[in-house]
Amino acid sequence: SFNRGMQTVTLIPGDGIGPEISTAVMKIFEAAKAPIRWEERNVTAIKGPGGRWMIPPDAKESMDKSKIGLKGPLKTPIAAGHPSMNLLLRKTFDLYANVRPCISIEGYKTPYTDVDLVTIRENTEGEYSGIEHVIVDGVVQSIKLITENASRRIAEYAFEYARNNQRTSVTAVHKANIMRMSDGLFLRKCREVAENYKDIKFTEMYLDTVCLNMVQDPTQFDVLVMPNLYGDILSDLCAGLIGGLGVTPSGNIGANGVAIFESVHGTAPDIAGMDLANPTALLLSAVMMLRHMGLHDYGNKIQTACFDTIRDKKVLTKDLGGNSKCSEFTADICRRIQDLD
Amino acid sequence: SFNRGMQTVTLIPGDGIGPEISTAVMKIFEAAKAPIRWEERNVTAIKGPGGRWMIPPDAKESMDKSKIGLKGPLKTPIAAGHPSMNLLLRKTFDLYANVRPCISIEGYKTPYTDVDLVTIRENTEGEYSGIEHVIVDGVVQSIKLITENASRRIAEYAFEYARNNQRTSVTAVHKANIMRMSDGLFLRKCREVAENYKDIKFTEMYLDTVCLNMVQDPTQFDVLVMPNLYGDILSDLCAGLIGGLGVTPSGNIGANGVAIFESVHGTAPDIAGMDLANPTALLLSAVMMLRHMGLHDYGNKIQTACFDTIRDKKVLTKDLGGNSKCSEFTADICRRIQDLD
Ligand SMILES: CC(C)[C@H](C(=O)O)[C@@H](O)C(=O)O
Ligand SMILES: CC(C)[C@H](C(=O)O)[C@@H](O)C(=O)O
Repeated sequence: SFNRGMQTVTLIPGDGIGPEISTAVMKIFEAAKAPIRWEERNVTAIKGPGGRWMIPPDAKESMDKSKIGLKGPLKTPIAAGHPSMNLLLRKTFDLYANVRPCISIEGYKTPYTDVDLVTIRENTEGEYSGIEHVIVDGVVQSIKLITENASRRIAEYAFEYARNNQRTSVTAVHKANIMRMSDGLFLRKCREVAENYKDIKFTEMYLDTVCLNMVQDPTQFDVLVMPNLYGDILSDLCAGLIGGLGVTPSGNIGANGVAIFESVHGTAPDIAGMDLANPTALLLSAVMMLRHMGLHDYGNKIQTACFDTIRDKKVLTKDLGGNSKCSEFTADICRRIQDLD
Repeated sequence: SFNRGMQTVTLIPGDGIGPEISTAVMKIFEAAKAPIRWEERNVTAIKGPGGRWMIPPDAKESMDKSKIGLKGPLKTPIAAGHPSMNLLLRKTFDLYANVRPCISIEGYKTPYTDVDLVTIRENTEGEYSGIEHVIVDGVVQSIKLITENASRRIAEYAFEYARNNQRTSVTAVHKANIMRMSDGLFLRKCREVAENYKDIKFTEMYLDTVCLNMVQDPTQFDVLVMPNLYGDILSDLCAGLIGGLGVTPSGNIGANGVAIFESVHGTAPDIAGMDLANPTALLLSAVMMLRHMGLHDYGNKIQTACFDTIRDKKVLTKDLGGNSKCSEFTADICRRIQDLD
């Protein structure tokens, strides 16, 4: 299986430390002889016909063709009315599932060990509908929109993911005791879909209870599926348990085989261009990407090398507790990959 | 100050283990000679004129007179249409602020030490408005309602609380990057109120970032103020950091001096009546109550005795890692109080 043809991936290096961690990933992929051809694209939002914000046509075309993207951090827009690029990308490619595996990294000390769970977040609706009104002066409403289709789709994704990744349980996270109709609909769809996956254990839990149990014993969780905002919260909470956004990968899965994998940390402008950044989150996202493309052997090889470098503690970037440069950390991973062959 | 007249408190023992932990608290108050007269009331919801659910008139009258309540756990209603008693109480007495101090208990092991923070949750609106609609088949909306008045009121409460409790900072928790109008309004009111409290440091943070930072280092937080649902989540998360709902006190503060203090754990029907329950959460809620009533000396004495019993590890209930009965744990606290005198 090391012998396939090259596949194209759209690379969006992003802002701040984005370019240097992207370079690191490309070097490591080269060392692993991963059969990937990178097509680099910039995604600063532009104003399209009718004044609607859109991503640049050449980035859109590349993604439409390659179907697979790898993306570094993008800076938060400052200009009023300028959209969040992350939200715009989710919308443009209908990336309905945000997937974040949170797995404890051996040798990287946090208050928790043996965390091994995956949050699956509905990525297109809920509290992120963007519909808000002023009712009268001083009274505002935001609308949370839950649909049967999006709920069924994310539930099906979660159960398929569990089955295809040797996971044994799916927990639906909700507040249907309070939002009886909206979270109630979400929960009902989860229950219905669960009927078709008798091999996977299904449980339901209130979001507040999940948070409490999570910080007391995260090892009790496996796959968790939830509406948009709850996923925003829980995925960050879980990232915190294993060491933060610098080591947590993320994938956004869309309809028609489209997917964008990304590091979810910031652009770290204070250290940009100084060869100090930690490329782990982007690298592990790229490993998720390889597995998504069926290239498991390459993914496993790269992940093993990366975890070995971290466990070994000799060549670590500053945020990981060492004092090596990004390029040195990268070189150590490359060396281990070559040793593995 | 040990010499005031008796004050009346409405005691709602609640269901399951409620009565036995209430008895424990009354015994401990007696040992401390706290100047409290208990007026016991039951609060099973009844249907009032026009079919509206209400709490029984004698409970309402007692609370209207005493203004102060102490409440054990209430069982979740099973009958459809029967309201959550907790929500009904919040509504009936306009208990607009839910306050939860989360402070590490010496000798009770959790992954964290030195946690010392307070969550202050807006308790009347937001995602708990109860307004929901089916738009068309399969499309549901829930409305999150944020008002200027409720936002200002909770912000003022948080800053007053900080000032009166020797706390130095208030963090507003929000998702105004997504819910620009509703969370935006909440945040704006916090900023405005902050202007009047130059002695208290004010910061703002996204809810997802708070969750991530919280599990990485909770000691960075002091007072946190937030809309209803975010408070539901964060208060449980923080309770988890210090050992769970069995050791976390809670107070609901209303307009016109009304307040109800409560343990927020469940009714534990499996051990009810067996003298196995842990009264700590209700006891620490009663300590909050004493302080709220200006009876700090009594509160401090009881809290010291309770923490001494826990630190000493000799007489602990099962959930705290021991094998003593509720009555033995209670007696140990009473003995220590008498020794303190
Ligand atoms: C950047 C922001 C719009 C985003 C969100 O709230 O979804 C972020 O927190 C995330 O999780 O990707
Ligand atoms: C019982 C339930 C209605 C309640 C809530 O969601 O507010 C509970 O979780 C709480 O925090 O008091």
